[in-house]
Amino acid sequence: MASTAEDHGHVQSAGRMQAYSDAIFSIVATVMILPVAHTEIPEDKNLREVIFYQLLPKIFIYILSFFVVAISWSAHVWLFQIVQHADDVTTLLNLLIMMIITFLPFTFTLMGTFPDFVLAIVLFCVCIIVLSLAQALVVLHMFRNPQIMEESIKNSENKTAVRNALLLRALMNAILCTFAAVFSPASFVVSYAFLVMILFSPNIAVQLSKLISKFSSGSVQMSQEVIQRGKSYEMEVNKERVECYSDGVFAIVATLIILDICEKDIPSRAELKHKYKNDLVAALDHDSSVFLAYFGTFATVGLLWYIHHSLYHHLKRTSRLMAMFNNFSLAMIGGMPLAFKLTSMYDDTDFYNNERVAIQLSCVIMFLASISQLAIFVTALFRPDQDLIDSAKVGGRSHYYLLVKLLVYPTVSMIIYVISLTSDVLSVEAFHVAQLGTPALFFILWLIVIKIQRNVQEVPNPEEQSFQESVNNEEQRLLTVPVENMDC
Amino acid sequence: MASTAEDHGHVQSAGRMQAYSDAIFSIVATVMILPVAHTEIPEDKNLREVIFYQLLPKIFIYILSFFVVAISWSAHVWLFQIVQHADDVTTLLNLLIMMIITFLPFTFTLMGTFPDFVLAIVLFCVCIIVLSLAQALVVLHMFRNPQIMEESIKNSENKTAVRNALLLRALMNAILCTFAAVFSPASFVVSYAFLVMILFSPNIAVQLSKLISKFSSGSVQMSQEVIQRGKSYEMEVNKERVECYSDGVFAIVATLIILDICEKDIPSRAELKHKYKNDLVAALDHDSSVFLAYFGTFATVGLLWYIHHSLYHHLKRTSRLMAMFNNFSLAMIGGMPLAFKLTSMYDDTDFYNNERVAIQLSCVIMFLASISQLAIFVTALFRPDQDLIDSAKVGGRSHYYLLVKLLVYPTVSMIIYVISLTSDVLSVEAFHVAQLGTPALFFILWLIVIKIQRNVQEVPNPEEQSFQESVNNEEQRLLTVPVENMDC
Repeated sequence: MASTAEDHGHVQSAGRMQAYSDAIFSIVATVMILPVAHTEIPEDKNLREVIFYQLLPKIFIYILSFFVVAISWSAHVWLFQIVQHADDVTTLLNLLIMMIITFLPFTFTLMGTFPDFVLAIVLFCVCIIVLSLAQALVVLHMFRNPQIMEESIKNSENKTAVRNALLLRALMNAILCTFAAVFSPASFVVSYAFLVMILFSPNIAVQLSKLISKFSSGSVQMSQEVIQRGKSYEMEVNKERVECYSDGVFAIVATLIILDICEKDIPSRAELKHKYKNDLVAALDHDSSVFLAYFGTFATVGLLWYIHHSLYHHLKRTSRLMAMFNNFSLAMIGGMPLAFKLTSMYDDTDFYNNERVAIQLSCVIMFLASISQLAIFVTALFRPDQDLIDSAKVGGRSHYYLLVKLLVYPTVSMIIYVISLTSDVLSVEAFHVAQLGTPALFFILWLIVIKIQRNVQEVPNPEEQSFQESVNNEEQRLLTVPVENMDC
Repeated sequence: MASTAEDHGHVQSAGRMQAYSDAIFSIVATVMILPVAHTEIPEDKNLREVIFYQLLPKIFIYILSFFVVAISWSAHVWLFQIVQHADDVTTLLNLLIMMIITFLPFTFTLMGTFPDFVLAIVLFCVCIIVLSLAQALVVLHMFRNPQIMEESIKNSENKTAVRNALLLRALMNAILCTFAAVFSPASFVVSYAFLVMILFSPNIAVQLSKLISKFSSGSVQMSQEVIQRGKSYEMEVNKERVECYSDGVFAIVATLIILDICEKDIPSRAELKHKYKNDLVAALDHDSSVFLAYFGTFATVGLLWYIHHSLYHHLKRTSRLMAMFNNFSLAMIGGMPLAFKLTSMYDDTDFYNNERVAIQLSCVIMFLASISQLAIFVTALFRPDQDLIDSAKVGGRSHYYLLVKLLVYPTVSMIIYVISLTSDVLSVEAFHVAQLGTPALFFILWLIVIKIQRNVQEVPNPEEQSFQESVNNEEQRLLTVPVENMDC
C-alpha cells in the first residue's frame, strides 16, 4: 500500500483540470448554435415560415445536443468529485475524454442532417462508448491509487462494492449505446429509444445497483451506503463548477457574434474600391445597423450574466432541478447569435413584416432565458434553509432586490413582445436601443436600493461611526433590516 | 464614512467576475486567428509563396493583436487586484469593459485590412479611449467606496496620491490614443508611433508619476510608496489568473477546429444524393484525412495544455517576462487551427510539395509554442527561490521529470522538421499519426519515473508502512530523494 502512495509524487489538486474541462464543455455546447445561426435565409421570404419549417427543427436539435453535452458535463463533475487529486494518468485520460467531447458537435450535426443513416447513429454511439470506457478507466485507476480518491470513499468499508457501483454508472452509457448501435440496422425507433435512455442513465444505474444488491446475498447493508452516496451526488451539482460552466457559455456567446461581424461586414480592399469608391465611411455606414445590434445583444448577454452572478452569489447549492433550469437558460442564451442575426438582417422596408417577427423571436429567447433564471430562485425559495444564504430568504436584506433584478428581463421582453403585436411603431433600431438602455434600469434600481438602505440605516443605528467596524458588522446588522422598508 | 460602507450591502468577492473576464479575454485573443485560417488558398499554387505573400502579413497582425489583448488583460488583472470586492457598479462597469474588448477583433480586422484609412485608426482609438475611461471610472468609484478596496491601499496614508497615480495609469492609454487619433489625418507614421507606445504605457505612467512627484514639493516620500506599489504590480501577474486565461485559449482552440469541420465536411442531403448517390460512408471517406488531422491536432493542443498544467503547478509566481513567454506560447497555440487547415488540405499527389511545406509550418508552430513553455521554466530557474516550489528546483524531486516533459515537443517537432527537409517519406498521415502517438510517449515517461521513484523509495524507507502517514509525509520525504537517482 505504501509503495502505491509513493508512486504518485506528482499528485495535484484537480481544480485546474476541472476548470479547463468546464470551459471546453461550455464552448462545445454553445457552438452548436452556429449551424442554426448560419442557415441561409433568403431576404425576400416570409420569416415566419422560414422559422417554422427551416429553423425550428434545427433549434430542436440544438437544444437536444445542448442537454446531452450538459448531462455529459454533470457526469464529468460527478466523476471528478470522487477523484479529488489529479495525477498524470488521470490528466491524460481526461484529455482523451475532452477529445471525444470536442468531437461531439460533428457527430451531432451528422445525426441531425442524416437521422436515418446507420453510420450517423453508429458514429455517435462509438463516441459515447469511448467516453464511457475512458470514465471507467478513471474509476479503475482511482481504486488502484487510493491517494487520489475522495476521503469518504477512501475510508469506505466495502471498497469493492463502491467501485462496482461507480463502474456500473460509468459503463451504463456504453451498454445503452451498444444496444442502440446493434439495433440501428434493424429499427431506427428502437435505436433512438436506447439513445433517449442516456438522458436517464444515472437513474437507471442506481436502480440496477439496487437490484443487483438485492439478489447478491449478505451485502445489502453495504449497498445501502453506495445508494446513499449515489443519491447525494445525484441531488446536487457542485456550485463552483456550475458557475465556471455558465461563465464559459456567456463568454463564448459574445465572441461568436463579433466573429460573424468580422467575417461578413468588413469589405475587402477590392470591394471597397469598386463598390464604395474607396469611401470606408460609406461602406461601414451600410452595416451600421449591425453595430447597434451587436452592442444591444452584448448588453443583454452581459446583463443576463450579471443577474446570474447575483443569483448564484445568494445560492448555497444547486439541486438537479435548479441545474436543469440553469441549462435551459444557458441554451437560450446560446441562441442569442441567432437573434442577433435575424434582427440585424431586416429593416422596416420589408414586405412580410419580417422585422417584427425577428424582434418577437428575440423577445421569446430573452423571456425564456430570464424566466428560467427566475425559476431557479423560485425553486430555491421552496427549501430556503438548504438552498439560500440568509440575506436572500424571504425577509432577508437582499431578497427583494434580487427578485426585482430577476423580474426585469421577463417584464421587459414581454412588454416589447406585446408592443410588437399591437403596433407598427417598433423597429429593430428601437429594439436595440431598448436593449442598450436596460443597464441604466439596473443602475437606477441600484440607486433606489442604496437610498432605501441609507434611510433604513440612519434610523436604527445613528451611533454607528467607526468605518472599519461597520464593514465587519455590516453583514449581520443588515440582516436585521425590517422587511417592510426593503419592499421596493 | 460609515454611511458609504452601508450603501454597499451587495459587496461580493470579485473572483467570479475575474474568471468571466479571463474567459472573454482569452477567447477574443484566440478567435483573431480565424481571418488567417479562413484565407482562401488555391490548391494548385505553391504553398511556400502563399505563406510568404498572403499569410505572413496576416499572421503578423494576428500576433500583434494577440499581444494587445494580452496587455489589456494584464491591465485588467492589475486593476482588479486593487478592487478586491465587486459591487453592482463595478460589475456593470466591468461589463462595459468586456463589451469593448469583445468589439476589439472588429477594429483590429478593420485596421489590418485598411491600415491607411483615418477611420480605421480613429475607430480603434475610440475603443481604447472608452476602455481607459471605464477603467478610470472603476478607480474613482473604488476611492469613493473604500470597502471594496484592497487592504494595503485602504490603509495607505496618502490616498489622494495613490488615487492620482492609479488614474494616471488608467488614463495613459486614453491620452496616447487621443494623440494618435488627432495626428492620423496628418501623418500615419506619427499616429502609429503613438499606438505602439500603448505597449509600454504602464512604464510611461510610472515614469510620469515620478516626474510629477519630483516637481510637486513635499510629497516625495509618499510618491515613493506609490512607485513601489506600482512596481510590485508590474513585476508579476497573478498566477491563478494566468492559468484561467491560458485555459481559455487552450479550450477555444480545440473547438474552433471542430467548428470548421462541422461547417465544411458534412455534406447536405442534396449533395449526398447527387454527388455520392446516398452513400454516406463514401462521402465521409472523402474527408477521412480531416478526422485524422483533427485528432492529431487535438492531441497536440491537449498535451501542450498538460505540460502547461504541470509547469504552472511547480511555479510560485509569474513574472512579467514569464508572462510574455506564456503569451507568445499561447499565440502560437492559437495558430493551431491554421496548421490544421493546411495539413488537412494536401496529400502526396501535389506538384509543389505543398504537403511537406504544410508539415514544416506545423512543426514551426509546435516548436515555438513548446520552446516558449521551456523558456518560462528556464527563466524561473534563474530565481528559483522566488519563482519555483521546492520540488521543481535543481535537485528537487520533480525537476528532471518536468524538464523532460518540456523538452518532448521541441525535440519531436525538430526531428519531424529535419525529416521533412531530407526525405520524401513523410506524409501528412504519418505526421498526424506521430501527433497521435505522442501521448504514449508521455505515458512511457510516467512509467519510467514511477519505476525510478519506486526503486529509490524502497531503499531508504523500508519501514514506511502506514498508508495515511505516507500520504501526509510524502511531500517532505520525497524532497530528499538524491538527485542522481532521479536523472532519467
